[in-house]
Amino acid sequence: MSAHFDRWPHIVCAQQFSRKWLEEEFLPLTDQMQKIVDIGGCSSLEDKRMVSFFYQPSTRTRMSFEMAMDYLGGRVVFSSENAGEFSSAKKGETLADTFRVINRYRPDVIVIRYDHDIGARFAADVSRAPVISAGDREPGQHPTQALLDLRTIYKRRGSIDGLKIAMVGDLDKGRTVRSLCYLLGKFKGIQIYFISPHNTRMGEDIKMYLRKHEVPFAEHTDLRVVAPDVDVVYQTRAQAECGTLLDRSEGYFIVDGIITSLMKKDAIIMHPLPRVDEITTDVDSDPRAVYLTGQIDSGLFTRMALLKMILTP
Amino acid sequence: MSAHFDRWPHIVCAQQFSRKWLEEEFLPLTDQMQKIVDIGGCSSLEDKRMVSFFYQPSTRTRMSFEMAMDYLGGRVVFSSENAGEFSSAKKGETLADTFRVINRYRPDVIVIRYDHDIGARFAADVSRAPVISAGDREPGQHPTQALLDLRTIYKRRGSIDGLKIAMVGDLDKGRTVRSLCYLLGKFKGIQIYFISPHNTRMGEDIKMYLRKHEVPFAEHTDLRVVAPDVDVVYQTRAQAECGTLLDRSEGYFIVDGIITSLMKKDAIIMHPLPRVDEITTDVDSDPRAVYLTGQIDSGLFTRMALLKMILTP
Amino acid sequence: MSAHFDRWPHIVCAQQFSRKWLEEEFLPLTDQMQKIVDIGGCSSLEDKRMVSFFYQPSTRTRMSFEMAMDYLGGRVVFSSENAGEFSSAKKGETLADTFRVINRYRPDVIVIRYDHDIGARFAADVSRAPVISAGDREPGQHPTQALLDLRTIYKRRGSIDGLKIAMVGDLDKGRTVRSLCYLLGKFKGIQIYFISPHNTRMGEDIKMYLRKHEVPFAEHTDLRVVAPDVDVVYQTRAQAECGTLLDRSEGYFIVDGIITSLMKKDAIIMHPLPRVDEITTDVDSDPRAVYLTGQIDSGLFTRMALLKMILTP
Repeated sequence: MSAHFDRWPHIVCAQQFSRKWLEEEFLPLTDQMQKIVDIGGCSSLEDKRMVSFFYQPSTRTRMSFEMAMDYLGGRVVFSSENAGEFSSAKKGETLADTFRVINRYRPDVIVIRYDHDIGARFAADVSRAPVISAGDREPGQHPTQALLDLRTIYKRRGSIDGLKIAMVGDLDKGRTVRSLCYLLGKFKGIQIYFISPHNTRMGEDIKMYLRKHEVPFAEHTDLRVVAPDVDVVYQTRAQAECGTLLDRSEGYFIVDGIITSLMKKDAIIMHPLPRVDEITTDVDSDPRAVYLTGQIDSGLFTRMALLKMILTP
Repeated sequence: MSAHFDRWPHIVCAQQFSRKWLEEEFLPLTDQMQKIVDIGGCSSLEDKRMVSFFYQPSTRTRMSFEMAMDYLGGRVVFSSENAGEFSSAKKGETLADTFRVINRYRPDVIVIRYDHDIGARFAADVSRAPVISAGDREPGQHPTQALLDLRTIYKRRGSIDGLKIAMVGDLDKGRTVRSLCYLLGKFKGIQIYFISPHNTRMGEDIKMYLRKHEVPFAEHTDLRVVAPDVDVVYQTRAQAECGTLLDRSEGYFIVDGIITSLMKKDAIIMHPLPRVDEITTDVDSDPRAVYLTGQIDSGLFTRMALLKMILTP
Repeated sequence: MSAHFDRWPHIVCAQQFSRKWLEEEFLPLTDQMQKIVDIGGCSSLEDKRMVSFFYQPSTRTRMSFEMAMDYLGGRVVFSSENAGEFSSAKKGETLADTFRVINRYRPDVIVIRYDHDIGARFAADVSRAPVISAGDREPGQHPTQALLDLRTIYKRRGSIDGLKIAMVGDLDKGRTVRSLCYLLGKFKGIQIYFISPHNTRMGEDIKMYLRKHEVPFAEHTDLRVVAPDVDVVYQTRAQAECGTLLDRSEGYFIVDGIITSLMKKDAIIMHPLPRVDEITTDVDSDPRAVYLTGQIDSGLFTRMALLKMILTP
């Protein structure tokens, strides 16, 4: 296990990972995990117990974690797909009480999605068992998504340094791009373009972080202008309540055939899913689209790698 | 594996099964499955992973599939009991995206109940892993129910040819009787009586199918007239919004002591459950009632047989 | 297996247990279960199947049962966290039909929380498989909670005879204190203080039971008066709709620093959880507080002991 995890066994925010850990431990281990999936699984965590505790529903992320545990031979001994609605939470119980109780059952790891923007970090404070955040409430963080995004980019480019990336859409609440910014701040030569409507621009906290880490960024409202220059177009989820992404008077925020025709041949198109109208379906068959392929695979291998590191002495 | 399944590994509608497959492969295999349950299970699918994905809740059908997988030694690695409410579906994700994602996790089989009348067929189109429909939204289909119904009848009569069956209740939306009609169309000497209120008569599509396959059928509004002649009284679920089944001015659509007194000694009474008032509880102890016994057993053996066929090379 | 369970394999109410069984079989077995948890589990129930069927959500109790099954090597082959909302129940199916169906799948044990105050007892009447109640709707019973409470007290005091206990809060609907009263009625020298607002006093049925079993009890409205005398302060859940526990004009019903300063050094503070404001959080670190520690542990060991007894020939 990495020195990093010796001191703080929880995974709650993207800032906690060092470049050294990312490059020397995490990324190589994800490739090993891919090999395990290729042979149908292994039994290395066969005596380990995961509790999967989702206050907010997230079928995709829960499936990714539970599948990851299964491929490593571990068991999901308890799973709740909507604990916020069903559990003691509704009766007013605090997260601290809930986590103290869960810990008495001695699980080996707890995966939590909590309906609060610092929920997982708080849970980690009272938990003896390692806690892995499966996403805070927006605009919090989603550290395992940031790791899988990093791996997806790395697998295509062979490195992260020098990356030019456009983050597109409603960026103010986008926990996935927020977490990815934290990770990218650890690398060199990064250039970020934020493409968003005026009222959903990337938060000031992230911009301050990037300035501090000397990551240059620029804000735009037309993806067509930026698309030819970037290695990655990272489209984010449109917020249900606003349809401004489709409103061309604000700018150009959709990934469609026009955008793909402008992009470099070796660039990639990413999206955390679920996708609605912000990427048109004709883009799906473009070989540069990885949101239904490489990102999902990297998600599985990433969660396996984390479980393996946390649960193996 | 049958030649049938080599070409199209999915189970989405009753029409897809041939009489030859039903008689020579499916029915004999269900008897083998019964023996496996009798000895407490086996491990023949021990390295296989099922994803159980229910957009609409259906405790009974989900339990039947998950138990079937367990008796064969396989694992349900992910189960969602209300994906339609909880998952990305609510955020507007398409079924195609969802299935592409699930497939990246490489499950061996996906059981789906989708909230659309052709959902499972559509899912199968984009799925690499075999898809088994656990029921469309009504008035779609419920192919595994049709198979278990067929087996239930077969086990009592020793054959399907020559069957006289009364299908009773709100037939317009009854996916189970619709699917069963498709199966019966493959046999000889079948006679079907549709007994329903005027405004919930069997759909024209099914009638056309039966005419094409030369299955004679008749429509009635009084089960008492038909009961003495038939081998099977198949009562269906009353639609919640209409109480016409209990309204005797429309006809006689309830299975009660009067009906059982008219029925043949070796006839059987079927129902897909859940049952409310359309079969009175005094009928439950009649030896001809199989809705709480033989049909449930056949459901387990049927799903086991399908899983075994699909997952065994 | 105890003679007790030979005759009636179900666990549905606290009255069913004899003092002899509690002291000679149940309590010793819970200590064995603790040892099994300490070594990480065993495989003694490895061929056994549990169905976990919760009509009402209860994350904590469901987790306790499913973890208990896992530590003994058994499998939870089907779990529903909100069957009342999702299942056939909503379509009007009776509990009897549901349990007949579940039994056809031949589970080894069924854990049920039903949304009715005598639900589990009724389910047991139609079930071939042993049924364990995971709590009736209030003001019914919660027999496994009573057993774990009894064990918690026993582990601290070494005996139950001679116990002085204060039961505090909204007692009229408190199924946990109701079930505990039934258990305590089997022991000697018990004294019970009921501390509650006037409109939520302990029910007359429990008082009659205690009188019949010659257990003296008294009713108070000020916990401060009783706290110095008792071995156990058992605080119950405040009913959501009434805030009278916090209203000091009615009496003193809260466990806080004042109460702990009055209590005996070797007394304990219990609560069935979830806890909201009726025990202040500064009490949590008091070594006499067992609601987040000993009670949870005893819950796991209690459910393991019951499963072991029921499922081992």
